[in-house]
Parts: sequence; structure tokens; C-alpha cells
Amino acid sequence: MHKKVAVLVAGSWGTALARVLADNRCAVQLWTRNAAQAEEINTTHRNEKYLPHAELPKGIRATTDLAEAVQDAEAILFVAPSIAMREVAKLAAPYVHKDALILHATKGFEGESLKRMSTVISEELGRPEGDIVVLSGPSHAEEVVNRLPTTIVVASSDIARAEAAQDLFMNNTYFRVYTNPDQIGVETAGAIKNIIALGAGLSDGLGFGDNAKAALITRGLAEIARLGTAMGANPMTFAGLAGIGDLIVTCTSQHSRNWRAGSMLAQGLELEQVLEQMGMVVEGVRTTKAAHALAAKYNVEMPITDQLFSVLFQGSSPERAVGALMGRVRTHEIEEIASATPSKWLR
Amino acid sequence: MHKKVAVLVAGSWGTALARVLADNRCAVQLWTRNAAQAEEINTTHRNEKYLPHAELPKGIRATTDLAEAVQDAEAILFVAPSIAMREVAKLAAPYVHKDALILHATKGFEGESLKRMSTVISEELGRPEGDIVVLSGPSHAEEVVNRLPTTIVVASSDIARAEAAQDLFMNNTYFRVYTNPDQIGVETAGAIKNIIALGAGLSDGLGFGDNAKAALITRGLAEIARLGTAMGANPMTFAGLAGIGDLIVTCTSQHSRNWRAGSMLAQGLELEQVLEQMGMVVEGVRTTKAAHALAAKYNVEMPITDQLFSVLFQGSSPERAVGALMGRVRTHEIEEIASATPSKWLR
Repeated sequence: MHKKVAVLVAGSWGTALARVLADNRCAVQLWTRNAAQAEEINTTHRNEKYLPHAELPKGIRATTDLAEAVQDAEAILFVAPSIAMREVAKLAAPYVHKDALILHATKGFEGESLKRMSTVISEELGRPEGDIVVLSGPSHAEEVVNRLPTTIVVASSDIARAEAAQDLFMNNTYFRVYTNPDQIGVETAGAIKNIIALGAGLSDGLGFGDNAKAALITRGLAEIARLGTAMGANPMTFAGLAGIGDLIVTCTSQHSRNWRAGSMLAQGLELEQVLEQMGMVVEGVRTTKAAHALAAKYNVEMPITDQLFSVLFQGSSPERAVGALMGRVRTHEIEEIASATPSKWLR
Repeated sequence: MHKKVAVLVAGSWGTALARVLADNRCAVQLWTRNAAQAEEINTTHRNEKYLPHAELPKGIRATTDLAEAVQDAEAILFVAPSIAMREVAKLAAPYVHKDALILHATKGFEGESLKRMSTVISEELGRPEGDIVVLSGPSHAEEVVNRLPTTIVVASSDIARAEAAQDLFMNNTYFRVYTNPDQIGVETAGAIKNIIALGAGLSDGLGFGDNAKAALITRGLAEIARLGTAMGANPMTFAGLAGIGDLIVTCTSQHSRNWRAGSMLAQGLELEQVLEQMGMVVEGVRTTKAAHALAAKYNVEMPITDQLFSVLFQGSSPERAVGALMGRVRTHEIEEIASATPSKWLR
């Protein structure tokens, strides 16, 4: 008990997961570069910008000193935005104990390299990829911090590490943790669903209704599975919590940032304006660029990603994009789903 | 053009599908036993009880004369509640032309016999089961009648009939139709998702949030696929519009009757009161009983159905039921999903 855990950084998801760890009687060091934010967390036990109105447990201690946060930690959870992950991992590397359990809970790819987050972290820490446990699943931070029942997945090809992560996060009151050996599948599903959420926001913003959105989500899952399996994932993962589960919650919940960004785009705002109004990272925007490039690299069809790409980066109108998605050629359903997972689902 | 089509009966889904057919320039005869309702549809072009505020096209003609509705029809769509399906099919049988295209769009099983609707209709009409095309997918009547973009599936083992149904319903403006040869899968998915929607309503009614609901839907899909494949369905169907698609829309939309019934139960109302307040058929209630029996018959694990059964028919409390669902034993995710579809998904 009283395991020492470091959480980097203090965004909404990092803070919510720090609460779970503190509730599980860990001593949590929450690292942030922002001294005022650290001060706020330590004195008022709140993180108002990222989790308004939530009261945090006193077992969370914020610090701006990375060495202090990391050096004695038995477990280190990386939750930096994808764009900052390599830098944060590089900064932390000198202080990370060789036996520390390493986890990450960031949903995105690295910009130019298109690498998964566990690859980025493993490179910077000089450890094999299986050492980095991926945490994902349907889990809005706003609900977790209020202790609403939540189920997540911890994934690593090294099952002993996945189980250690399960022990760390699982509790009997509100946080239920499943293990999954398919690190690649859990990681790609978590990243790409943000694109579909942008699309769902567009559809809702244009007033298209729940029938259209359900069709978009269904086809989005096929698209995610198509790229994921091409990258080496187990197709079963996409039928689970990190696949369908996370996709549903991201596309239908009021808490979803990516959904909100999509609906603002539908109302005619420019991407710059949307990002400014959000004031927080919208991972789906960068992920659209990465997945667009990955689709080309792996020669996989991703019509929803293509349409989002054209809206975000090529000035296409949301109406035209959603219209293009609704009026497609294929009419045999199984053929379309099957092409998502060419061999494994049908074998 | 101007195909003659009969729609039996004039509930919300029947009326909405009649609108699609009329928009596609069919001459639609909408049968109802209620003379006042027929009069309302023919004079005011409204069906206020079932689709408030919707204006219907003049190409829909309501009638109480079943012979008149059916005898010249080139296509006949059965949309009676599951409890009335056999009776309606029996009444219509003498007038059905042997070359007529037969469809149904009812989501449920026959009470005692546990038969699928296409089996019931085929028995009464004395035609093979493949003759009955099943229409399903994510499609709230309230949105279809307002011409919001909707995608559905038409399923029959006889692909020529499925394609004829596709030609009948598909249009270029708002109604997109996919064919699927897996009649059993489409039919079981459509029926059982109403149970999961009751559960989602319970969860929401108890204030459990979107994370919990996404977990419930994910596990619900596994449960649906488990029973469906045991009954002979293609597991791929559950990843498509009639599976995930319909499940999502039914569990997350404000229009869903089954969801609403579940949330009323969570607020402490008795089943009788809920059904009375709804004033319309809540198929999920009867389907819970049927699926509970089918799970026993096919020796399949259906934990969500079991819990709903205990709430609806054995006086268990909603809190206890949802609590039982959240605290289960299995912790390896793939194992749980895999047990949904024992061989085919993994082969």
C-alpha cells in the first residue's frame, strides 16, 4: 500500500486518473510545468481549468519538480498531449527507475513520425515497447473524477505488466480494469476514434439526427478496425471497451471535446477559432492528419478520415463532407464490413 | 413506378416507412383496425398519437379493409407488434398474391414459441422463410418521417428478394438501404438490442453516466452476438448497421421507447405503471422474457438479460441489477468478447 506513483501531466485525464490512484491509497505526485496550477491543486485541491467544480483528494500532491515526482516512483503514468509526449518522456528519462512500471493514457500519434505513443516513450526511456502499458477505454475524466462507474482496459504484450497496472488502478467501488494483450489495437482504437467523434460532431451540428450518427459510428468502427488490423492489431479488440466502447462514449457524450469541436465546425467556425474557443487540446485534429498519412502508408480505405481531412485542412465544407459520406457506392453490407478486416474476422 | 404497397399496421414505424414508400412514388395502403385513426390519416394527413407533429404525404391512404389493402399489393410490409404478428399474418394470408414481395420490420420474438417474426409470417403465409425480407437498422421513426438521413439493412437468404426490397425503399435523398444475406442475424440483433436499451435506461435513470453506459452497450453487443451466433447468425452482422448501429441509436437517443421505459423503472415506477404511461408497445419487455428463455434453450450466457429479467419479472431492484452487472468476475477482455462468438470470430 501507499505506492508512490508519478502522473505527468495535470490535464483533465491525468488529474482524474490521479484521483483514482489516490482513492486506491497511492501517494500521487502530479507533475505540471505551471506553478500556479500546482499551487491551486496543493492548496485548494482543485484543478479548475481542466476539471471545474471537482474536489480532489488530499493524497494528490502537485509539483513542478520533475525529478522529485519521478525518481522514487514505483509507477509512472504519462498523460501528456501527443504533441508533447516525446519531450516529456525525454525530460523524465534520467530519473525513471529501471524497475518502475510505465503506463500511458494518451490517445494520438506522433506528428511526423506517425509513431504510437508507446513507441515514443519506449524510445526515450530505452526500454522495450511491451514495457509500456496502455490505458484506454470509455472514460470521460469528468465522470471518473466524480467516481461514476467506469471500466477501462490496460494493454501490454507483457501480461505481467498489464496485470500490475490492473492491480494499481482497479477498485471495488467505481473503477473496473480489464487486461488485454493487444497493445497496438488498444492504442490505435483510442487514437482514431477521436476522428470519428469530430465527424459525429459535424453530423450533429448540421442537424442530421441520431440515425445518421449511428450509421457514421458503425462505419467509423469498420474504418478503425481496417487501419488497426493493417498495423498488426487483433480485430477482436475493436469489439471491446477500447474499440466500440470508447467510440460510443466519445461520439455521443456531451463531455467529448472532439465531438464539440466538430459541432462548432458545422456551425461555420474556422478551425483556428474552434481551437481557440476550446482552450484545450483537441487530439482528433492532429490525429486526422496522422491517420490520413497512415491510411496511405498501409494502403487502407478510410473515407471518414478522408472527409475530415478535407474539412480541417483543405477548406472543404462540412455539408459537402457529410454528403459525400452518406452517398457512397457499396450496398452490400457484409462486403463493406468484411473489407474492414480482410482476413481475420472471416477466417 | 406507382407500385402498390400495403403496410400493416399504422404504428409509428409503419407510418414512417409508409412515408418513405410514398416519397418513392408508391401507392401506399396503410391498414389499421382503428377507424378514427384511418379517418385522421386520410383527412388531416397526420397520425398524432404515434408521430406527433409530422405531416404525411398524400400518397398514403389509410384503410380498415384488410382485403382492399392487401389484394392488389405488389409488396406487403408487416409491422405489427410482435404479440399481434401471427394474427395479422393469418388475417392477411387469404388476400396475399403469390408473387407479392413480403417484408417485415418488427423487432421481437413470438411469446411462447420463441420464434422469429419471419418464421411466424412464413408459417401463416405458407411460404419459405427466405421469402420474408427483414428490414432493420438504426432508424428512429421520428427522424425518418422528417426525412433525416437514415441507413438501413434489408436481409434475406434469397438475395434477389433483398435486392427487390432495396429497390423499393432506397432513394437518393434521405433513405439508404444495404442488403445482407444473414436474415437470422439481422432479426435477432434487432430484437435483443431492445433489452440492452432497457438496461441503458436503467443505468441512466440511476445517474451512472456515459462511461457506465458505454460499458453496458459494449457488453450488450457481446451478449447479442453470443445468442445470435448460437441461433445460426453470421457474427459479422453484429458489427454492422443492424447490430452496433441499431444498438447505439436505441441506447443513446431520446426517441427510444425502451430506453425511456428503463429510465422510468430506475425512478421507482412499477412495470405496470411504466407501460401505462408509455401508451405504446415497449417490445423490450416481452423480448426480455423471450431472450431469457432462448439463452436457456441455446445454453448461452446473457448476464444483462438475466438482470433485466430479474428487475422486470422477479421484483429485483434496479440498483441491485446494475450493481451486479458492474461487479463481475472476468478481467481478461478478449476472453470475454471471444466467449460471445466462440469460434467464428477467432477462426
